[in-house]
Amino acid sequence: MKVLIVHAHPEPQSFTAALRDQAVATLEGQGHEVQVSDLYAMQWNPVASAADFATRENPDYLVYALEQRLGVKKQSIAADIQSELNKLLWADLLILNFPIFWFSAPAMLKGWIDRVLVSGVCYGGKRFYDQGGLAGKRALVTVTLGGREHMFGEGAIHGPLEDMLRPILRGTLAYVGYEVLAPFVAWHVPYISAEARQDFLVGYQQRLQGLVDEQPLVFPKLEQFDEALYPLS
Amino acid sequence: MKVLIVHAHPEPQSFTAALRDQAVATLEGQGHEVQVSDLYAMQWNPVASAADFATRENPDYLVYALEQRLGVKKQSIAADIQSELNKLLWADLLILNFPIFWFSAPAMLKGWIDRVLVSGVCYGGKRFYDQGGLAGKRALVTVTLGGREHMFGEGAIHGPLEDMLRPILRGTLAYVGYEVLAPFVAWHVPYISAEARQDFLVGYQQRLQGLVDEQPLVFPKLEQFDEALYPLS
Repeated sequence: MKVLIVHAHPEPQSFTAALRDQAVATLEGQGHEVQVSDLYAMQWNPVASAADFATRENPDYLVYALEQRLGVKKQSIAADIQSELNKLLWADLLILNFPIFWFSAPAMLKGWIDRVLVSGVCYGGKRFYDQGGLAGKRALVTVTLGGREHMFGEGAIHGPLEDMLRPILRGTLAYVGYEVLAPFVAWHVPYISAEARQDFLVGYQQRLQGLVDEQPLVFPKLEQFDEALYPLS
Repeated sequence: MKVLIVHAHPEPQSFTAALRDQAVATLEGQGHEVQVSDLYAMQWNPVASAADFATRENPDYLVYALEQRLGVKKQSIAADIQSELNKLLWADLLILNFPIFWFSAPAMLKGWIDRVLVSGVCYGGKRFYDQGGLAGKRALVTVTLGGREHMFGEGAIHGPLEDMLRPILRGTLAYVGYEVLAPFVAWHVPYISAEARQDFLVGYQQRLQGLVDEQPLVFPKLEQFDEALYPLS
């Protein structure tokens, strides 16, 4: 299996980085090939803009998705985007590894999603959800957060974490065709002991070792909807 | 009323910009004071990093929220953050005005949230949801998107848009204390006629004129939970 880990944390020594390193060691130990995109270390540019296109279909008015489609076809899209897109297409498994900022990804990672999941390759027209451009691949979201586990779930103060992560799990990863696995979550990280952190690392290792046998989360399939995308009931 | 509009779109002539201009004209026409933060025009830096703090409580290990608390207290936080925070505290109404990218905010705006909603001022300890640092203020999310209205809602292919926007509506705006109004949504924008766009602008004007009488969305209150944040009853 080929694995891409996209990591975004502003502190190089963070526990989130330890989870990244655990994933590299575990997956390489199983004989998989692993590449890591460490977005802060790379000084990744998260801002989608006109500067991403050397030539433009419409130089007077930017429709970002349209220019993505043409830029990737003409190979004139920005080199940093093309490089990440190549890794994405190479990988059978994508791991997004990040600390929860405002119940979602840090801007650094959101900007990787905005720029790299290009229209015309990852999705477009009726190519989304189970028909998405990356169908057949798997994705895992691995997060650290400050909250305690009992603050999440039905009836809990923040509701289910999966509901907060819906734009990423369903609106992004499932949308482009990934089989999305249940997130791996390390709770209350800034406040816990070294032993508790070690427990998370061991739990993550075990989780990764059994990943190929996991059942993915369930999301819509296009066959459940008509041509205009109304539900077929 | 004092109003801050935070606008993030890579195309200066976008319909999203027309909505921004409609809000400025309508609200100023009603006698309100309006400031606009146009993040692309400002070349806003969306990346939360150690560079945001001139002096550090812990120079060896970055805990971003901790340094925010101290930086804002010592007035040593980055000038661009302090300037936006001043506008945020000045405003009675915050409008986030953006195109939906991946069922959420563009990285440019996400990075404004990551950097400007500082710990210790906007939230901290038990100061969140109805007890949040910005309690008493109102917030509106105004979005444009490519999808059609029938693709959203219970049973629709993408589910309710409010569920996709949950990290912003509940996890961010309600979390820091805002009374959050129902989003204003302009559907299918890249594909509609000039007349249909005009209808959205008129609808937005009418919505803004009645904004003060609107009932906000309902979110958790801390009194429904015990000291450890377990639900009461």
